Amino acid sequence: MTHPRIAHPGLATRRVDAAQAAEWIQPGMAVGMSGFTGAGYPKAVPQALAARMEAARERGEPFALRVLTGASTAPELDGALARAGGIDFRLPYQSDPELRARINRGEIEYMDIHLGHVAQYAWFGFLGPIDVAVIEVAGILPDGRLIPSTSVGNNKTWLDLADKVIVEVNHCQPLGLDGMHDIYYGTALPPARRPIPLLQPGDRIGEPYLRVDPDRIVAVVETNAPDRLGSFAPPDETSKAIAANLVEFFRHEIRAGRLSEQLLPLQSGVGNIANAVLAGLQDGGFSGLTAFTEVIQDGMLDLIESGVITMASATALSLSPPAVERFVANIGLFRERIVLRPQEMSNHAELVRRLGCIAMNGMVEADIYGNVNSTHVAGSTIINGIGGSGDFARNGFLSCFVTPSTAKGGAISTIVPMVSHVDHNEHDVDVIVTEQGLADLRGMSPKQRARAVIANCAHPDYRDALQDYFDRALAGSAGRHTPHLLGEALSWHQRYLDTGSMRG
Amino acid sequence: MTHPRIAHPGLATRRVDAAQAAEWIQPGMAVGMSGFTGAGYPKAVPQALAARMEAARERGEPFALRVLTGASTAPELDGALARAGGIDFRLPYQSDPELRARINRGEIEYMDIHLGHVAQYAWFGFLGPIDVAVIEVAGILPDGRLIPSTSVGNNKTWLDLADKVIVEVNHCQPLGLDGMHDIYYGTALPPARRPIPLLQPGDRIGEPYLRVDPDRIVAVVETNAPDRLGSFAPPDETSKAIAANLVEFFRHEIRAGRLSEQLLPLQSGVGNIANAVLAGLQDGGFSGLTAFTEVIQDGMLDLIESGVITMASATALSLSPPAVERFVANIGLFRERIVLRPQEMSNHAELVRRLGCIAMNGMVEADIYGNVNSTHVAGSTIINGIGGSGDFARNGFLSCFVTPSTAKGGAISTIVPMVSHVDHNEHDVDVIVTEQGLADLRGMSPKQRARAVIANCAHPDYRDALQDYFDRALAGSAGRHTPHLLGEALSWHQRYLDTGSMRG
Repeated sequence: MTHPRIAHPGLATRRVDAAQAAEWIQPGMAVGMSGFTGAGYPKAVPQALAARMEAARERGEPFALRVLTGASTAPELDGALARAGGIDFRLPYQSDPELRARINRGEIEYMDIHLGHVAQYAWFGFLGPIDVAVIEVAGILPDGRLIPSTSVGNNKTWLDLADKVIVEVNHCQPLGLDGMHDIYYGTALPPARRPIPLLQPGDRIGEPYLRVDPDRIVAVVETNAPDRLGSFAPPDETSKAIAANLVEFFRHEIRAGRLSEQLLPLQSGVGNIANAVLAGLQDGGFSGLTAFTEVIQDGMLDLIESGVITMASATALSLSPPAVERFVANIGLFRERIVLRPQEMSNHAELVRRLGCIAMNGMVEADIYGNVNSTHVAGSTIINGIGGSGDFARNGFLSCFVTPSTAKGGAISTIVPMVSHVDHNEHDVDVIVTEQGLADLRGMSPKQRARAVIANCAHPDYRDALQDYFDRALAGSAGRHTPHLLGEALSWHQRYLDTGSMRG
Repeated sequence: MTHPRIAHPGLATRRVDAAQAAEWIQPGMAVGMSGFTGAGYPKAVPQALAARMEAARERGEPFALRVLTGASTAPELDGALARAGGIDFRLPYQSDPELRARINRGEIEYMDIHLGHVAQYAWFGFLGPIDVAVIEVAGILPDGRLIPSTSVGNNKTWLDLADKVIVEVNHCQPLGLDGMHDIYYGTALPPARRPIPLLQPGDRIGEPYLRVDPDRIVAVVETNAPDRLGSFAPPDETSKAIAANLVEFFRHEIRAGRLSEQLLPLQSGVGNIANAVLAGLQDGGFSGLTAFTEVIQDGMLDLIESGVITMASATALSLSPPAVERFVANIGLFRERIVLRPQEMSNHAELVRRLGCIAMNGMVEADIYGNVNSTHVAGSTIINGIGGSGDFARNGFLSCFVTPSTAKGGAISTIVPMVSHVDHNEHDVDVIVTEQGLADLRGMSPKQRARAVIANCAHPDYRDALQDYFDRALAGSAGRHTPHLLGEALSWHQRYLDTGSMRG
């Protein structure tokens, strides 16, 4: 066989180059793309599309799309399309600097939506029709089914709903991925929905391949490029302190009988602090853990390899280049311990609630009353989006949010009188952790929470000012359930905008 | 039989008066009480307890409790205990004026928590031990099982967890309630949880009675008093206009193929506007509807009686005195069409998501970007609490929030630049309805939402000022994803506090 990755004879004849494939996409279309936290995004068609957009712009013809993905992609997709002025509307999570800058200049309409809601919103018809799907896969089976790539994301939904499908077959993705995925085809629209028969993180309830009618595949593009993921910094002292505080809390909960030694399925957000927390579990003597999460990053791969985590469910493998090497070298082990699912399942309210996930997510800031901002700087500038944090914080067993107590070299306190944007409200936040300490907010009123957050989480440089705000609010607020001085509640953010620092 | 409602011989001997029963409750205890939106709360023991508290106070001895309920109760419980200074800590939803006043004076710690989370938080051990349960029932079976009263609420959980149980047998509650309830005993702690086998709102998955070990029942108190529920005002023009806007939207969704003529299971919040919306469905020619909701109020009883709603699931029957008469007169019909469940089930994320509920909830205010405040006046004064609105708004098919566009005779705009407290964030709000119109926010970015909310929902008296804020924010905000002027965002609320009006 000349094309072992494209085993369907008819589809092998539909191989074209990326520029030809991109011709299927017309201005104004809605395009569902693969990609989740930098894994499994199409590598070639978006760039060819960006070139068409640039050419159209030079001719004075507008060429922009509605772009829907799994989550964040990479410069080759979000960056290239944004730079070409080719995105009118984008959802959900994103992290590309160029895309973000244009969103914050008001040039692109961005809808931030729970990652666990995207697929059902599309099926409900709330997001409009999907014209084209552009999906990276690891290979095509003789019957036309697709071997998923390093992320599943919303690929099932885009493949099912799109009028036309463009498949990118990436020769760089390990064929050992074959069999790791579990695509659940038991979903339905209400009122025909039934229980999802998943009881443990590792349960396989679907099939390993993505179904698609080969007749709807209009182009097959071959690529050979790795997911472009950076390496992680080794945990710094702040991250290690945050991790140590959280691990000590888990130990405390075990001693109190509220958690077993195996804890409960872990969900871990993305980034350096999340990796540090996972490293803390590695060092903390835990074993027999499981994960039911969105993304497997380097830190979780370490825990799986060492046996600390015996089974991990996710929707994406977002690994740095050295971790990819380890993954490929040891793929037999990882295939037994990792299941990759559609994000509709990895983040499903029913499953997160049933399994009782321990949610651990980063944040931008928390206020003294335990409201959390995961997305905005100073109330108006979006960073990446809420991701799946809400799916897990609302429905899990325990909702933990972690952050260093300051940012920008101390110019920003991440503990503030009132958050400038709320993504997780007081009802959804159990535990706040900084390098200073941990505030356990379970069973507390707002005022009790304020005292715990100020005492345990705030940086000493800001602690007195927070206490002063709380004391004056308690004395002067119209109501004393959640004492606030409205004229001052957001003044720390305004001061930061005005002076570059929250310091008084 | 002299005591047909207390058929267990041993328990019949434990009959005492309320004062004797109240002796089982000591200062500092945590007491789980029945009661949900004014239905099924204990009528006698809390008042006897309040008398003990008053007497203790006169002796200079502090006597206060942690009080946990299903939701709001009545003056005989929350009012009496609050007035006696007998509540240190209270959760969840409450609506008694005396209790609310003391919470807002800072005298009582109140924890506002999703109604669907209370039971599992108690089971997880997050709320501490439950010392005594005080539960109203309609009767006791020969084997000691309890016939639930007009609400189930958290009664199963309090009965299971409390060291000691006090039962109030209310002779005033209709014995026809026997068989209407469905108490699910299949819950477990993670990792042992399994799918909840409910596929339709009317499915019976449990048993009609509450189990309890008779040996833990330390006192049985007989009462004969109705739930004290007020009557509803007939819908006014504003409520009718809100209802008409929402009903027209449902018609639009049916025409678009996104809803069937039977819609999807309805969840309806409490109060006059909710009743008006239900009346609007009655007049709108709908039939074959179902409800999966928390509370059956008068409006829903009408729809069940007329056959518009063929099956309704809830956790409480909160009926006005005339509606109670109709309920009793027609109990054969209602027993076939109503199932009362624990609030853990009526508000369960898994079930709300599976069934695809249409959530319709009132609110205090919304901001132009679609964030909703359900609980606080001017950011600091709590009204009643979030109730179950978050359980349904987050997990349902469609999340609708309704309110008149103004309050306090026009002094307050319920559409504001920035809400002063967030209970439902931009990710959880699909539709905002006022008497002015309806904003369909699905698939929109923040700026698109702002234009829709200002144009469709704001009162004309405030529309220009909102548009002016948005325009200036768009020009002057640090970021233009969610444009805000932080120094001004909460100024409408401050102006209201300062002048009694939001008008400039």
